[in-house]
Amino acid sequence: MNYFDHAASTFLYPEVLEELQSSLKEDFANPSAQHILGHELSEKISFYRQDFLKILGAGKNDSFIFTSSATESNNTVIRGLTFLEGDTILYCRADHPSVTAPIENTGVVLKEIILNNDGAINLEKFNEALDTNVKLVVLTHVNNQNGVILDIPLLAKLVKEKTKAHVHIDAVQSFGKIPFKVTSEIDSVSITSHKIGGPKGIAGLYLRNAHSVKPLLLGGGQENGFRSSTESFPLIKAFYKAMKMATSELTASSQKVAQFSELIKKELRQSIPSIQMPFLETSPYIVSFILPGISSDIILRHLETRDVFISSTSACSSKQSGFNPSLLAMQIPERFHKNFLRVSLGPKTTEEEVKNLLREFVSVWQSVSHVQRR
Amino acid sequence: MNYFDHAASTFLYPEVLEELQSSLKEDFANPSAQHILGHELSEKISFYRQDFLKILGAGKNDSFIFTSSATESNNTVIRGLTFLEGDTILYCRADHPSVTAPIENTGVVLKEIILNNDGAINLEKFNEALDTNVKLVVLTHVNNQNGVILDIPLLAKLVKEKTKAHVHIDAVQSFGKIPFKVTSEIDSVSITSHKIGGPKGIAGLYLRNAHSVKPLLLGGGQENGFRSSTESFPLIKAFYKAMKMATSELTASSQKVAQFSELIKKELRQSIPSIQMPFLETSPYIVSFILPGISSDIILRHLETRDVFISSTSACSSKQSGFNPSLLAMQIPERFHKNFLRVSLGPKTTEEEVKNLLREFVSVWQSVSHVQRR
Repeated sequence: MNYFDHAASTFLYPEVLEELQSSLKEDFANPSAQHILGHELSEKISFYRQDFLKILGAGKNDSFIFTSSATESNNTVIRGLTFLEGDTILYCRADHPSVTAPIENTGVVLKEIILNNDGAINLEKFNEALDTNVKLVVLTHVNNQNGVILDIPLLAKLVKEKTKAHVHIDAVQSFGKIPFKVTSEIDSVSITSHKIGGPKGIAGLYLRNAHSVKPLLLGGGQENGFRSSTESFPLIKAFYKAMKMATSELTASSQKVAQFSELIKKELRQSIPSIQMPFLETSPYIVSFILPGISSDIILRHLETRDVFISSTSACSSKQSGFNPSLLAMQIPERFHKNFLRVSLGPKTTEEEVKNLLREFVSVWQSVSHVQRR
Repeated sequence: MNYFDHAASTFLYPEVLEELQSSLKEDFANPSAQHILGHELSEKISFYRQDFLKILGAGKNDSFIFTSSATESNNTVIRGLTFLEGDTILYCRADHPSVTAPIENTGVVLKEIILNNDGAINLEKFNEALDTNVKLVVLTHVNNQNGVILDIPLLAKLVKEKTKAHVHIDAVQSFGKIPFKVTSEIDSVSITSHKIGGPKGIAGLYLRNAHSVKPLLLGGGQENGFRSSTESFPLIKAFYKAMKMATSELTASSQKVAQFSELIKKELRQSIPSIQMPFLETSPYIVSFILPGISSDIILRHLETRDVFISSTSACSSKQSGFNPSLLAMQIPERFHKNFLRVSLGPKTTEEEVKNLLREFVSVWQSVSHVQRR
């Protein structure tokens, strides 16, 4: 299988799978139970929590909450902040629906972060939008569709110079893949397990000041009261292991993956003259492009019969019908929304898979464009 | 190990563990992905969803949403309903914190369901409380601490005769253990996986009319728009398998467990004259009692050194300090709150474990009560 949809979800590291399989069998107790079986699991969770804070470059007294998904992490912050009359939120419509949907549901006055044609933030307009009414700014470190990397420390600093806004970072596509550390201007960060070789159903939320955000789930008071629910110990342990694996291999993996993504870009540009790759400053893990006049869904169907799997848009956007507001925010004209494709790589992607992808992709493109031209 | 805290969390069925272990390895794709790997997983989820509806006795067009925990299921309903000025909620303070905490956070006027000394609902007062202002009634099928079973069809019928309230059932401690079916008077039901031999991190929410409840998690529109987040396919598959196992063995398991719990009650009453067992009409899976003057925590500590694990209160209430409002609602005087113990059984509990429990419990009681009497 030549799997190039790692940004949607990726394999478990074999080491993570092994730990998870044994933990599912052995660590069955409820970590909130009062007996020793519960206490032991609870103490391990505290240890993992501290290590997540450490790897994020956060303070010991900051909070790291285990949630069930990055969607939950983003919703927890956006729904948990208190907004008053006159407050505004600054956000980007190119972001993941788990950011844009809850923001657009708050009823708060919204301001948009405007992107340039290359996917970067228009800094002039960003600065203009910053005033003291802005109470929340959400920034996505690596965009899940075009892979564009934002300069988070710079942007967060700009925000705090002109506002007292809460700065929330969606680091789902960057954590464990490209370097990321919290700075004193960052108030919260969402990360997730299943994009970095851990299982689905577990994610994390960093909070500088947990009391600034009202909990989304109320109940037994787990996660220091910030997220009630029985702690999914085996999933937490597996997420921790995946984080350790991903972060320890980060530099080597990203260098290797960068060579692959450069090769993919170069070869596709050479073989497909009409291809458009408007995005600069992107994560090596994501290569996205437009094939004008070619249906991305047809490319996808052909490729899957050849055991090659890529994406035409974010898995989480696939339920939406009609045009794609996030592509529009990336300055992609509506007529190209059906021509957008994403190839996403993982730390274990091999050279052979890349060669298979390129061979099959070009071949499919040739036959499809031949048919569509006739 | 003699584990008697199954109501807090239980072992995975070996068959569930096996399926989960292989699914974690193989079913790595994102079920929302547009390629065949995603579609295949998505179709399986639809099949599981329909089978959950079937086993609950619900209609094909009703909704069953996979959530991350029963806490999330309860919060989704309670936070997702729309209340207007003058509306009231009728609930029981003996219920799980994931019911009581979000209800007490709504800001809506609250009315309490009053229990008799035996843990049953005081029907006269229940009827008195029902008026047209009541917009939500939450009923727990089996109480997680005292094991008392409510007559849900009868109570739901009473509610609908006098009100148009949404009737929500917390069936976490009953589903898969004692017979439960939705009736036309029931609007929503919470169930969970890790109490019936499935993994933690996955649960379910039945909704007769999903549109009556606003989603808690907004984003990619998964679960037909009612619960955004990447679907945790392996966990869903494992929950489904656990449901199939638990429901197919329900009658045989509950008969066996009923014999054990009757034996436990009889033996403890004979050996410990001061023991109080006020609760009637309880689930065979839960035996709870009071040992006046004896610290339940000390009993727990002694028992765990003898490889016996029971509970002094719900794992999900263990984070709370001070007196226990749910025990008070059960008409247990505050002076006995530190003397409350719960033994909970699972479908795989053996006669040998029960004998070990009884021997060690009586022995620990003898030594502890001897010391405390001196």
